[in-house]
Amino acid sequence: MDIIENWFSERYSDYLQLSFRVRDQLISVKTDYQRIDVFDTYSFGRLLSIDGTVQLTDQDEYIYHEMITEVPYVYAKRKPQSALVIGGGDGGAALRLLKLGLKRIVNVEIDSQVVEVSRRFFPNLASSFDDPACHLVIGDGIKFVSETDEKFDLIVVDSTDPEGPAEGLFSANFYRSVKRVLSDGGIVVVQSGSPFYQPRALELASSGLREVFSNVKTYTAFIPTYPSGLWSFTMAGDEIMDAPLRSAQGRYFNSEVARGAFMLPEFVKQVIHKAER
Amino acid sequence: MDIIENWFSERYSDYLQLSFRVRDQLISVKTDYQRIDVFDTYSFGRLLSIDGTVQLTDQDEYIYHEMITEVPYVYAKRKPQSALVIGGGDGGAALRLLKLGLKRIVNVEIDSQVVEVSRRFFPNLASSFDDPACHLVIGDGIKFVSETDEKFDLIVVDSTDPEGPAEGLFSANFYRSVKRVLSDGGIVVVQSGSPFYQPRALELASSGLREVFSNVKTYTAFIPTYPSGLWSFTMAGDEIMDAPLRSAQGRYFNSEVARGAFMLPEFVKQVIHKAER
Repeated sequence: MDIIENWFSERYSDYLQLSFRVRDQLISVKTDYQRIDVFDTYSFGRLLSIDGTVQLTDQDEYIYHEMITEVPYVYAKRKPQSALVIGGGDGGAALRLLKLGLKRIVNVEIDSQVVEVSRRFFPNLASSFDDPACHLVIGDGIKFVSETDEKFDLIVVDSTDPEGPAEGLFSANFYRSVKRVLSDGGIVVVQSGSPFYQPRALELASSGLREVFSNVKTYTAFIPTYPSGLWSFTMAGDEIMDAPLRSAQGRYFNSEVARGAFMLPEFVKQVIHKAER
Repeated sequence: MDIIENWFSERYSDYLQLSFRVRDQLISVKTDYQRIDVFDTYSFGRLLSIDGTVQLTDQDEYIYHEMITEVPYVYAKRKPQSALVIGGGDGGAALRLLKLGLKRIVNVEIDSQVVEVSRRFFPNLASSFDDPACHLVIGDGIKFVSETDEKFDLIVVDSTDPEGPAEGLFSANFYRSVKRVLSDGGIVVVQSGSPFYQPRALELASSGLREVFSNVKTYTAFIPTYPSGLWSFTMAGDEIMDAPLRSAQGRYFNSEVARGAFMLPEFVKQVIHKAER
């Protein structure tokens, strides 16, 4: 063991932090929007951090990316053919959507540096941007949905948390624009944060989506490198099936998770009920 | 903010740790079995650590204790009247069983110091030991089950992980003794560790229980202060119902969790399948 140990710590608050021992810091860039770091960790392979917050690691990115794509995929009324990804500049969400057989993906990422860093350090994820079915747009997702004439079967809001550049992605105004570009029977899904440490993200997503869509459902997944280990996603539409219409198999997702992820702990239901009032 | 910050860190490995900022260390004792520490943390109230491993905190103990008692309670063929708790010297499992209306609880804890520390620093949990329905035995749980003539409707193995004093609690030999003291239609439940970081605990519990009982079911719960945030429990018996027969309401547990907790992520199923072979 080396005499000097290097650790990257994500502070969940002034009082709590998760620390990863790192072999090396591979890059640190300050962009117009945020700070991006990549670390080579011992336990989780490469780790992408934005503004000090873990976005993904080699070892567990599959959980987040399967859950943000495969769940809406199996519950959509018609088999999705097209998707819009807002954020997701690492390419991981687009990669899963390609594997699900979608024919057209538009991925709108505001920060070109996220894409550049992913191409260099997470080439497998970023390879999705080289697929002819995937069209990458560097730009503001809010502006894009307010201006495009195209409609999409799935809209995946794969954003950072509701502070900084992603704040506007948690508003009813944005969800109204989203509805305009959603196909009939389409589904929008948003990452809605840690119900335990960041109930505000879940409250905002839940109440905002409820203003716009008749059917809003929250589900959770276990993500070991995210604060508290429990993460929430909220999907919405005007026609979401009560049971999965098709299957998809992942390393985390399966037909049991497709149903069980919606069976929420009482304290998560309380956060949502608070948002409903 | 103070100039000096004090942190308690649980090292999940040489490469990963979760750190709690603490106001004060309230006690540190080295017993014949283990080291016991209690910290006053900023985020989670008081925290009990054994050999450097978080056992419980004021803020989230309810999740572990609800899940290790209420799940077997709702699935048992006959409404449980009596329970044996092995370990659980903090009193939290016994407290939940009393709230569920059980008439007789025998709690066998090997280390009297765990009970003493809990009486002093977690008086609400330890109050269960003052209830006339609860009989506390300081002794070896393995010896107790091999010698007692009493039978119990529920047996709760609320142990530390399978290193140190709890090693023998993860063996088929122990589970055979357990079966002998289990009522007809009774259920045994064991904490079976983090499927992500400690698959060995789940493998041992799963394969050992399968040698002895015809029905073995693993379920999970989200526990923010435990490694990775995902925890497993495994319950076994010769007659476990397919659906809950009665209800119980907690701050985490509810009728949805009673079903959803058994719908396991694919990687958890893989750990169990490995143990089946």
